[in-house]
Amino acid sequence: MSKENINIVQQFASDNYSGICPEALSAMQDANFGHASSYGDDAWTGRAANAFRQLFETDCEVFFVFNGTAANSLALASLCQSYHGVICADSAHVETDECGAPEFFSNGSKLLVAHSADGKLTPDSIHELATKRQDIHYPKPRVVTMTQPTETGRVYTTEEVQAISAACKAHGLSLHMDGARFANACAKLEQSPAELTWRSGVDVLCFGGTKNGMAVGEAVIFFDRKLAADFDYRCKQAGQLASKMRFLTAPWVGLLESGAWLTNAAHANRCAAYFAEQIATIPGVTIVSAVDANAVFVHASEGILEPLQKRGWKFYTFIGGAARFMFSWDADLARIDELVRDLQECALSAKDALV
Amino acid sequence: MSKENINIVQQFASDNYSGICPEALSAMQDANFGHASSYGDDAWTGRAANAFRQLFETDCEVFFVFNGTAANSLALASLCQSYHGVICADSAHVETDECGAPEFFSNGSKLLVAHSADGKLTPDSIHELATKRQDIHYPKPRVVTMTQPTETGRVYTTEEVQAISAACKAHGLSLHMDGARFANACAKLEQSPAELTWRSGVDVLCFGGTKNGMAVGEAVIFFDRKLAADFDYRCKQAGQLASKMRFLTAPWVGLLESGAWLTNAAHANRCAAYFAEQIATIPGVTIVSAVDANAVFVHASEGILEPLQKRGWKFYTFIGGAARFMFSWDADLARIDELVRDLQECALSAKDALV
Amino acid sequence: MSKENINIVQQFASDNYSGICPEALSAMQDANFGHASSYGDDAWTGRAANAFRQLFETDCEVFFVFNGTAANSLALASLCQSYHGVICADSAHVETDECGAPEFFSNGSKLLVAHSADGKLTPDSIHELATKRQDIHYPKPRVVTMTQPTETGRVYTTEEVQAISAACKAHGLSLHMDGARFANACAKLEQSPAELTWRSGVDVLCFGGTKNGMAVGEAVIFFDRKLAADFDYRCKQAGQLASKMRFLTAPWVGLLESGAWLTNAAHANRCAAYFAEQIATIPGVTIVSAVDANAVFVHASEGILEPLQKRGWKFYTFIGGAARFMFSWDADLARIDELVRDLQECALSAKDALV
Amino acid sequence: MSKENINIVQQFASDNYSGICPEALSAMQDANFGHASSYGDDAWTGRAANAFRQLFETDCEVFFVFNGTAANSLALASLCQSYHGVICADSAHVETDECGAPEFFSNGSKLLVAHSADGKLTPDSIHELATKRQDIHYPKPRVVTMTQPTETGRVYTTEEVQAISAACKAHGLSLHMDGARFANACAKLEQSPAELTWRSGVDVLCFGGTKNGMAVGEAVIFFDRKLAADFDYRCKQAGQLASKMRFLTAPWVGLLESGAWLTNAAHANRCAAYFAEQIATIPGVTIVSAVDANAVFVHASEGILEPLQKRGWKFYTFIGGAARFMFSWDADLARIDELVRDLQECALSAKDALV
Repeated sequence: MSKENINIVQQFASDNYSGICPEALSAMQDANFGHASSYGDDAWTGRAANAFRQLFETDCEVFFVFNGTAANSLALASLCQSYHGVICADSAHVETDECGAPEFFSNGSKLLVAHSADGKLTPDSIHELATKRQDIHYPKPRVVTMTQPTETGRVYTTEEVQAISAACKAHGLSLHMDGARFANACAKLEQSPAELTWRSGVDVLCFGGTKNGMAVGEAVIFFDRKLAADFDYRCKQAGQLASKMRFLTAPWVGLLESGAWLTNAAHANRCAAYFAEQIATIPGVTIVSAVDANAVFVHASEGILEPLQKRGWKFYTFIGGAARFMFSWDADLARIDELVRDLQECALSAKDALV
Repeated sequence: MSKENINIVQQFASDNYSGICPEALSAMQDANFGHASSYGDDAWTGRAANAFRQLFETDCEVFFVFNGTAANSLALASLCQSYHGVICADSAHVETDECGAPEFFSNGSKLLVAHSADGKLTPDSIHELATKRQDIHYPKPRVVTMTQPTETGRVYTTEEVQAISAACKAHGLSLHMDGARFANACAKLEQSPAELTWRSGVDVLCFGGTKNGMAVGEAVIFFDRKLAADFDYRCKQAGQLASKMRFLTAPWVGLLESGAWLTNAAHANRCAAYFAEQIATIPGVTIVSAVDANAVFVHASEGILEPLQKRGWKFYTFIGGAARFMFSWDADLARIDELVRDLQECALSAKDALV
Repeated sequence: MSKENINIVQQFASDNYSGICPEALSAMQDANFGHASSYGDDAWTGRAANAFRQLFETDCEVFFVFNGTAANSLALASLCQSYHGVICADSAHVETDECGAPEFFSNGSKLLVAHSADGKLTPDSIHELATKRQDIHYPKPRVVTMTQPTETGRVYTTEEVQAISAACKAHGLSLHMDGARFANACAKLEQSPAELTWRSGVDVLCFGGTKNGMAVGEAVIFFDRKLAADFDYRCKQAGQLASKMRFLTAPWVGLLESGAWLTNAAHANRCAAYFAEQIATIPGVTIVSAVDANAVFVHASEGILEPLQKRGWKFYTFIGGAARFMFSWDADLARIDELVRDLQECALSAKDALV
Repeated sequence: MSKENINIVQQFASDNYSGICPEALSAMQDANFGHASSYGDDAWTGRAANAFRQLFETDCEVFFVFNGTAANSLALASLCQSYHGVICADSAHVETDECGAPEFFSNGSKLLVAHSADGKLTPDSIHELATKRQDIHYPKPRVVTMTQPTETGRVYTTEEVQAISAACKAHGLSLHMDGARFANACAKLEQSPAELTWRSGVDVLCFGGTKNGMAVGEAVIFFDRKLAADFDYRCKQAGQLASKMRFLTAPWVGLLESGAWLTNAAHANRCAAYFAEQIATIPGVTIVSAVDANAVFVHASEGILEPLQKRGWKFYTFIGGAARFMFSWDADLARIDELVRDLQECALSAKDALV
């Protein structure tokens, strides 16, 4: 079977349509040499953990799991008990797209949902949810989870993170950051990962590797080592301990030591910005909100979007009620130009049809 | 950092010390081309599922998860409720080495343990556990899980599987097969996978890919499609749905379409047999039981084993109270010869010391 | 210590402030004679189960548990798996007042919440939630739970129950009825329990005993016996099997055989209606919605409610944003008159203060 | 229906065949006066908690739940996480008779079972289980649960409890005491409840009320208040918070303030001792072990036991492989004499048959 038959031409429906970036693949190939101790007791895993410690400029505890659903759910479960509540935005991935995984891993914790236009939590929304119910008939709020960038492509500034952290401390809540696209936030803010996380009060970060260019894998990073007690057992029991761990960790070495983690994200962000710029003046097409990271959300009529899909373009429309175009580490400018051109033509046809 | 510093010379402690076999790696590289739909909606995943259907000569339902702990636990959870019991041998991996994962995924199912010298269940032991308690104060037996080959390296014959299946049917129990090394059983018995499983009454098989030459990944195969209802939701919620699924499934295509799944296993088995043959006459060294698959369990005094470890050899001693030597798809005969030589010398020294 | 010091004068904050009704207490005392087999294998338990079968005119399966939280959660858990969704109204007790119990007992099922002014689900709201998401990234809807009467004191008509049942069938959903105050609905509708439940499509009913006059205890009634498979094990494992079961079931015999279950509820309903009637013309006091059962929800300014509380009256204000007055099986008309008088006086004072 | 038809004449199969003792019933009746705040916010509950604090001479945290399965499981769940192990004797009720409840409430904790002839744990058995596995592939031991008295009717001396506590401290384990018949241990040892628990290193005690003469109810007592954090939420979520709490707590007031908790247990113990004494010389009948509390385990041939059952006597034979005779707070000496006589006659007949 030819490769062409199996894979598809570049699309902008999701950044997880992309493949493995060269730095990650090459490290994985390098790791495929001889034998290595299993379950993380190998040199690649130690090296990857150290690369994280260097990146974050602190002696954090690092765990490697298979995917984001597990990373977030295990981290949250480690911060609360089944009768506790987890405060999140209503568009948070943990609430909308993980099929009840946080509830499953924690054996019943309830997500306490803050309505939010841009997917961002605020100190006020946290305060409201943290104080709404104080009786034992309702789960006791215990953790806040924020998505950085949000599902709707917005990036929290460091000041916003700090303000949220202050609200958490005021209410005795732990602060978890779902960083499935954390690198994109770093690229946007041009601040150090340390600044964006523990120096601003984040307790635990789930750092996404898959969308950043890996085949599979996320890192769970505990800045407060005490919170990580027995987390290795938790991962093992929950089916998240890889036996041939080196193949989950070598790619991290490739990404982190080369700096590709950041250049990948910066490229994706730039492509999103470029696309937004190109379509800004197309009549009937509105960009929904600021393009902070690698997503562009677009409002357009069915008369525009349907023909666009008929031309073969894929995009999600179920998030935030808009058409989402997502740019990955390998986004190709020429292919974006094709998309822009098709979108222009579809918009024009739709306009003509109205006249 | 040079590769040599990171990985170790070939060892025989576990078959998960080995790397990725050429067929799996090459397919993974082939899959790394362009974009592909995520979460299994891609051509590689369909192709891998079909390869399994061909291999098993039936229209089975196939799911791809990250590791064996999850594969077994999710399969068992789908076959019972929290108040049910799962019958297994006392040396079963689910009982001894998965940190309570079956109990976690099922929210409390109890493992009902049959004592077994060679790790094999028998119709009698199943009958005993299935009838021991019939009151609601004890979990109701609902599933039998057998490990093929067993943790102690023994292979159930097709007749044995059929007899177990008959016992299951007599007691209304489902039959699950933990096939972390299923390929090694096939290689040993020289019978078709269909014969060894559904034709002999197995309801669900967890087919191990990692030890068979993949980086990561196991397949859960439901021969009775009704039992697979909503299993995709179960996987998703439990953090076992890969977003870039093609990298979990392309290696299966590589293994299955090339036949490497079987040649890898056959090589490993041969190496175990070769090692057993070479050490058979070493004084003070006894092979514990028949070498059916890719493991050799050896009884020897501390006076022999300690010096062997000091020479740099790694092996487990916590399974079945013996020293376990495990041979992987890439086991190297020359390296085995080194091990044999060292074992001979250690045995000789120990004998001399006694005199 | 005198009794007066320990208990309080009659209040209308909740119907669970009331004690044990004579019929229930007397049966409990009768049951306290000699020895009886434990765990439900006694004559009282059989008699109570039969009384339910007679009441519902069908050979239903009946289980006795300690409280409503457990009754609802166990029933729901038996109707779905952890990755399924449970459709309910946003004011449903399972959503607002059980501290995540349904999520806990089911190991993670998500409550899918329909916004509802009067606490009632409708075929439309069920249809909307049942079809909103069809992908594996979100819990699959599997059960509908309706509260009869609703938390806001409204009673579904038989036609409404039938319409909901039809919507459930159309979407492959089971129908559970939370009947913590089911007797009050029966008293209101003057229809047979059979008509209000299984003949209208209800699969499982949780029939509340505590608010109906018992000390402790609810019944879980499966009209479709197949759905009750192994439910006895589920209760046992979840800590809901009483050893001295007769003391949980004899009161049911007392309530059901004497008809007190219905007269108790009718009295409570009448008291609510009486109260509503008496306060209907008090200026500044508005009854929020139709008084179908034993609750009256009242809108009034803080200037009225605060002085009322200062006079020693207790009522909840956190349900439906109104002051709730709840009338129990033992509600005393003279005491209600006192409440009416005080409310009138407080309303008058508040009005005077405004002038 | 006459009472006689519903209840049975006194039996010795289990102490939960007995009814409610006068002191508990009378308090329950006293509590049934007027209204009381629900969910434990009433005077009876405060009074019961204080009675426990006085009894234990310390400011412990006290929670009231419905039954022993829940009491033990919730207490254990509060002391460990799902990936931890709970050390217990192989005959412990949590292992043999709670249908996997500890695994359910803790979401997967594994019971690590010590083989024990008399049901007692020892420092050695704890040490062995605490150190057997130190890797993440097996649940990490975190709690020890001891049953006082044991399922086989033996009472730990204070010195034995202290030695176990020392072993726990040495291995960083919490110590839980399943005191379903704790009062019987106190009666046997004639030491203060404080001495037998927290002064000897017990962290949490489940104090059984049902077998002590109540209709329903157990108390969970945390001597280390920090361990009780949010335990009220845990109870609520798990369906163990009674709404009309006074009826669960007033009986405790009745038992504790009157001293009946101890006189009830002492009577039961005396009856067991009396029975043991009376049958000591019957040929073919052997008392299995020391009669410390209210159980007598008897070895006798089927030729003796079967005729005894045919005469209408009930006793369990599935615990410890012997016939168990259990004496409750209301055991009647005349009825015991009848049993002794019948046992003598059966033994004699069996002997004659052999000749």
